[in-house]
Amino acid sequence: MAKQSIAAHKSWLPDANHATTDFPLTHLPYAAFTREGQQHLCVAIGSHLLDLHACASSGLLPPTLTEACQSPTLNLLMSQGPRSWALLRKTLTTLLHADAKPEHKEKAEAALHSIAGSTFQKPVHIPNYTDFYASIHHATRAGQLFRPDQPLLPNYKHIPIGYHGRASSFLVSGEPIVRPIGQTRPSAEEVQPNFLPTSKLDYELELALYIGQPNTQGVPIPISSAADHIFGISLLNDWSARDIQSWEYQPLGPFVAKNFATSISPWVTPIPALEPFRVPAAPRPATDPKPLPYLHSTADQKSGSVNVLLEVFILTKRMKANKLQPFLLSESNPQDLYWTPAQLIAHHTSNGCNLQVGDILATGTISGPAQASAGCLLELTHNGAQPLLLPTGETRTFLEDGDEIILRGSCKSPGHPRIGLGECRATILPARV
Amino acid sequence: MAKQSIAAHKSWLPDANHATTDFPLTHLPYAAFTREGQQHLCVAIGSHLLDLHACASSGLLPPTLTEACQSPTLNLLMSQGPRSWALLRKTLTTLLHADAKPEHKEKAEAALHSIAGSTFQKPVHIPNYTDFYASIHHATRAGQLFRPDQPLLPNYKHIPIGYHGRASSFLVSGEPIVRPIGQTRPSAEEVQPNFLPTSKLDYELELALYIGQPNTQGVPIPISSAADHIFGISLLNDWSARDIQSWEYQPLGPFVAKNFATSISPWVTPIPALEPFRVPAAPRPATDPKPLPYLHSTADQKSGSVNVLLEVFILTKRMKANKLQPFLLSESNPQDLYWTPAQLIAHHTSNGCNLQVGDILATGTISGPAQASAGCLLELTHNGAQPLLLPTGETRTFLEDGDEIILRGSCKSPGHPRIGLGECRATILPARV
Repeated sequence: MAKQSIAAHKSWLPDANHATTDFPLTHLPYAAFTREGQQHLCVAIGSHLLDLHACASSGLLPPTLTEACQSPTLNLLMSQGPRSWALLRKTLTTLLHADAKPEHKEKAEAALHSIAGSTFQKPVHIPNYTDFYASIHHATRAGQLFRPDQPLLPNYKHIPIGYHGRASSFLVSGEPIVRPIGQTRPSAEEVQPNFLPTSKLDYELELALYIGQPNTQGVPIPISSAADHIFGISLLNDWSARDIQSWEYQPLGPFVAKNFATSISPWVTPIPALEPFRVPAAPRPATDPKPLPYLHSTADQKSGSVNVLLEVFILTKRMKANKLQPFLLSESNPQDLYWTPAQLIAHHTSNGCNLQVGDILATGTISGPAQASAGCLLELTHNGAQPLLLPTGETRTFLEDGDEIILRGSCKSPGHPRIGLGECRATILPARV
Repeated sequence: MAKQSIAAHKSWLPDANHATTDFPLTHLPYAAFTREGQQHLCVAIGSHLLDLHACASSGLLPPTLTEACQSPTLNLLMSQGPRSWALLRKTLTTLLHADAKPEHKEKAEAALHSIAGSTFQKPVHIPNYTDFYASIHHATRAGQLFRPDQPLLPNYKHIPIGYHGRASSFLVSGEPIVRPIGQTRPSAEEVQPNFLPTSKLDYELELALYIGQPNTQGVPIPISSAADHIFGISLLNDWSARDIQSWEYQPLGPFVAKNFATSISPWVTPIPALEPFRVPAAPRPATDPKPLPYLHSTADQKSGSVNVLLEVFILTKRMKANKLQPFLLSESNPQDLYWTPAQLIAHHTSNGCNLQVGDILATGTISGPAQASAGCLLELTHNGAQPLLLPTGETRTFLEDGDEIILRGSCKSPGHPRIGLGECRATILPARV
């Protein structure tokens, strides 16, 4: 049964059928790459990408999708709505399937490029960016460090806490991160704060939800249909300068500690590719308050979570010089989040706030219940008090110049080909002083 | 001397020369209005507006400005840079001046429309919105209500505190505000929060700074040139649901308490129009810390503040029925802010965060030292404890359905025509329940 199901998803591209590929025929994540000086949309298949602009030109795609597929970003496709999303996915699945018509296959082959040799751009114009705080494990452990008397605030189990992030400073995977400079807490009240390169630069392992369907200002999205507004997901790294953050964040939240850069994977995994990996929302302890009706999901799995093994790796300069493999720092899973994607959307719009096509709602740091499943160095090193030992003998409390951070994600379910979310990676450059 | 200066700014439009107009020849604020189903840019002059799209078509504007002046928003003009801004302003000033060439005047007359009969749109596409907290008087009085033990936090005098607001939910003056629904603090820990229409809907009197010149990500804007990045200013009302805010704002700042709507005036006052009204930054008490070097302005008035008498009026349903004039609630002035516009920009970009063309940086609530100069009801009524008495005998703690809030701003300086910032107004509609 399992083998049959996998055989049914066989592509004519041999490398798409390898058990190790992130991008089998059942995945088809979207991206945008540079082709002859232009930005073209594409989907990944095995170790290749299929140029959607070229496919549209060759008549391989329905005419109603030509303009969207020849746009530089996914926003136009998103705004055409779920029927268009489904039509494109069905068309591309047929085109890349082992049973594809030979004349279609021939045209598609002409639109294939190696992923390895390609340069990627941000696949979506992101009008607004909201970052949540949906992991109770992260909120509790981070809270212990900043507010030991009250780690988890009284609102946490009632409200999906979130804040607006900076939409302008997204970088696509591969672009470097310049260490930011900022103010940190002075050693005493009468002393001036330092204004120096951060010495507590951290990553945050997150998932981005791309909003594909907007809502009208003033009209909330009910939780029953909230999941339908999501076009796809991506790996996201919410870089954070912890020393700047702890000094600035009262009373209005994080600002320059985070808005210098956010890295996003080039790959947008469409929601239907995640269908086999859906799981119910994490069960809440019986002593926890029930979500208010506007946040209450039914048993419907579309309002639940998704099972993705998320991993964070570090690759230091010395590790690169010694040709070592990236070292695993964290492992976690969004199925452990306290709030589901549908709850985030329902809360965000509960006051009539309007989401726009291409908006990112991020989960916040995804940490699991175990200390080893913490999704950032703040938690892993107890705010620097417990350095990590790397295979080279180096230690890390926070990130150093030259360190590269790599996020990966992987979905497995019996009877279904594994899919991988690709990578979101970036190297730290020294501050400009 | 004064009379000469005013005479030098005489327009051939008689109503532009009245002492009471907000829009003399020295002002020429930009806006966008609806003309035959299209959105056209314009400038205000007296009680009229001059259609820039039509002016470009008639050959009244330099060819290098045609595309920008025929765009639906100011973003293209902004992105052409200060030389283009100055060229357009000079051209329009000459065109509307009493000494204009008759053939130009005739063509311009054909592009004039009455402001009273026009419908306005948002004049700028706003990619990002940042809200600051630059009034120490507001921060202190609001802090007294939420944190009586520590009203002003230790970071306040070192950092221009700010947070990212919601760019999608801007409304132009005249569009109504739907009362938002949200969670409020439960009466006891074991009780569920309420989820009801806010009963503490408030206005916040602010100024918006429109960013006209961007910076590259990773490259801070030094304070010495920060003011050059501002294209113009507008009145802004940052609607706030205080009961939702006080429950949600820890630890990541305000979110659904504010992101349902922000009102913006249709008028963008260009910076050169404010030249006669510039003032040095408010002097800091000698006991206050000096700003760090990256926030230290020279005596150059461009890095200072501006003298604008700001006013907030309320017009209730009953006041309208009784044909009463709007009632003055607050009076304040941005010259009392602790942080100047240049300091806000220098801080925002100090970590390399990139500002984009059309971004709004808002000052935060502008309150003066006196209780009567508080820029929001939270302060004026002590969080509802001291209701205000209106001329109808009605009282207000926070806003009620049907209330209209009107912001106005006025600049005076001896020897210069007065200019007014126009109005930013909106009426509260009942919640959709």
